[in-house]
Amino acid sequence: MHIDIQWVPFPPSLEILSKKTVVVIDVLRATSVIIEALSQGAIEVIPVTTVEEAARLVKTFPRGSTLLGGERGSRKIQGFDFGNSPKEYTAERVNGKRLILTTTNGTKAFHSVAAAEDVLVGSLLNGTAVAERSLQLDRDVLIFPSGDEGAFSLEDVVCGGMLIDLMAKKSHTSNGLTDASSSARILYQRFEGSLLEALRLSGHGKDLDALGLGEDLFYCARTDVTDLVPTFRENVIRAS
Amino acid sequence: MHIDIQWVPFPPSLEILSKKTVVVIDVLRATSVIIEALSQGAIEVIPVTTVEEAARLVKTFPRGSTLLGGERGSRKIQGFDFGNSPKEYTAERVNGKRLILTTTNGTKAFHSVAAAEDVLVGSLLNGTAVAERSLQLDRDVLIFPSGDEGAFSLEDVVCGGMLIDLMAKKSHTSNGLTDASSSARILYQRFEGSLLEALRLSGHGKDLDALGLGEDLFYCARTDVTDLVPTFRENVIRAS
Repeated sequence: MHIDIQWVPFPPSLEILSKKTVVVIDVLRATSVIIEALSQGAIEVIPVTTVEEAARLVKTFPRGSTLLGGERGSRKIQGFDFGNSPKEYTAERVNGKRLILTTTNGTKAFHSVAAAEDVLVGSLLNGTAVAERSLQLDRDVLIFPSGDEGAFSLEDVVCGGMLIDLMAKKSHTSNGLTDASSSARILYQRFEGSLLEALRLSGHGKDLDALGLGEDLFYCARTDVTDLVPTFRENVIRAS
Repeated sequence: MHIDIQWVPFPPSLEILSKKTVVVIDVLRATSVIIEALSQGAIEVIPVTTVEEAARLVKTFPRGSTLLGGERGSRKIQGFDFGNSPKEYTAERVNGKRLILTTTNGTKAFHSVAAAEDVLVGSLLNGTAVAERSLQLDRDVLIFPSGDEGAFSLEDVVCGGMLIDLMAKKSHTSNGLTDASSSARILYQRFEGSLLEALRLSGHGKDLDALGLGEDLFYCARTDVTDLVPTFRENVIRAS
């Protein structure tokens, strides 16, 4: 079983995706939001790439059944029900509802890796659970950090490194690690004692802080608050 | 002044390269070979992408003036004068000669970044000198690890991290660092006490060792053995 991580979020080839388990990560903030919304009782999340697609799609569902969430430039989109802060997604607001989500990086990432055998949703919030599920599936794993507008994003690779560290420890071997996954593991180990520090050091974390969204960093830096491992299949993310 | 590093060696866009200083790194072994050959008195190195191109080009120069070096599958190419081990490039053999070099990763990398304002040749052998030259040129820097057949290569990113660490220390600021360059610096710091360990841990280092070329790892892990900063311009690499 090989465990690899793609440091930069360009779409992988079909050959790379074939027969793999892919874990999509967007710590700040899309995968944290998805995990939070489903934990709070949302029935499903549909990730779409454009605001127009979200606006069109919501009209195809019964009124009141479906909510719109997401961001552009890290800010809530006009006319949407939610921005991209996990704390907005309370049980009171999302329980029993469908969520259509569009964000700059994270929601695109799902469509880039849709051809994989399994696509799991990972973040710090469900790290141990997603590492265990990846091992259970017993296929080669590709961790896919969503990055920051096409570039490398520190917090996503640190989260990927945490999953790699957990998988290597649980399987009692680091034989299946590539140069990329060994390096992500080293990067995680640097921040193991304070994951919040990685989020604060990252370019995207600094941007959020400057926009007054610093509280989201605390929220997204928490580890193992849920055992939920959402999966993306046929364009929809569900709790299992 | 921004200092960035591209972790995965896909060709950067013209927009990314424009007005930048690019440092190409292939620790194992192309840039180590280029620096060694020029240090030993070779007049210039012409990096080409294919064996056929090398064979065709050598015929256009006066007989005896030009040597052929490089590898495929890490092994010397049939009919070539040299493989890709730096130690082969002694003054006795290369002084006053032109070298045509073709390797799997490194020589391709130069052509991927040819549109940059300056293209410098970096390795552990000339780390401090190349960091200083990059600062003197006073333009944004992109470090370009050649990688391993399109994938991430540990030893090249560790070397890039060393250059980033040196530049940050010499300029007394880490303000210009991106998530990618901060992470490469952290990776370098993990191996600072033993760069040879990084070369041995890397997939490509293990392959070379298995082929009986382990001595090259010692050779390429040495730091600051020369002040030479070769530059690539109009398809040719020269000492300055």
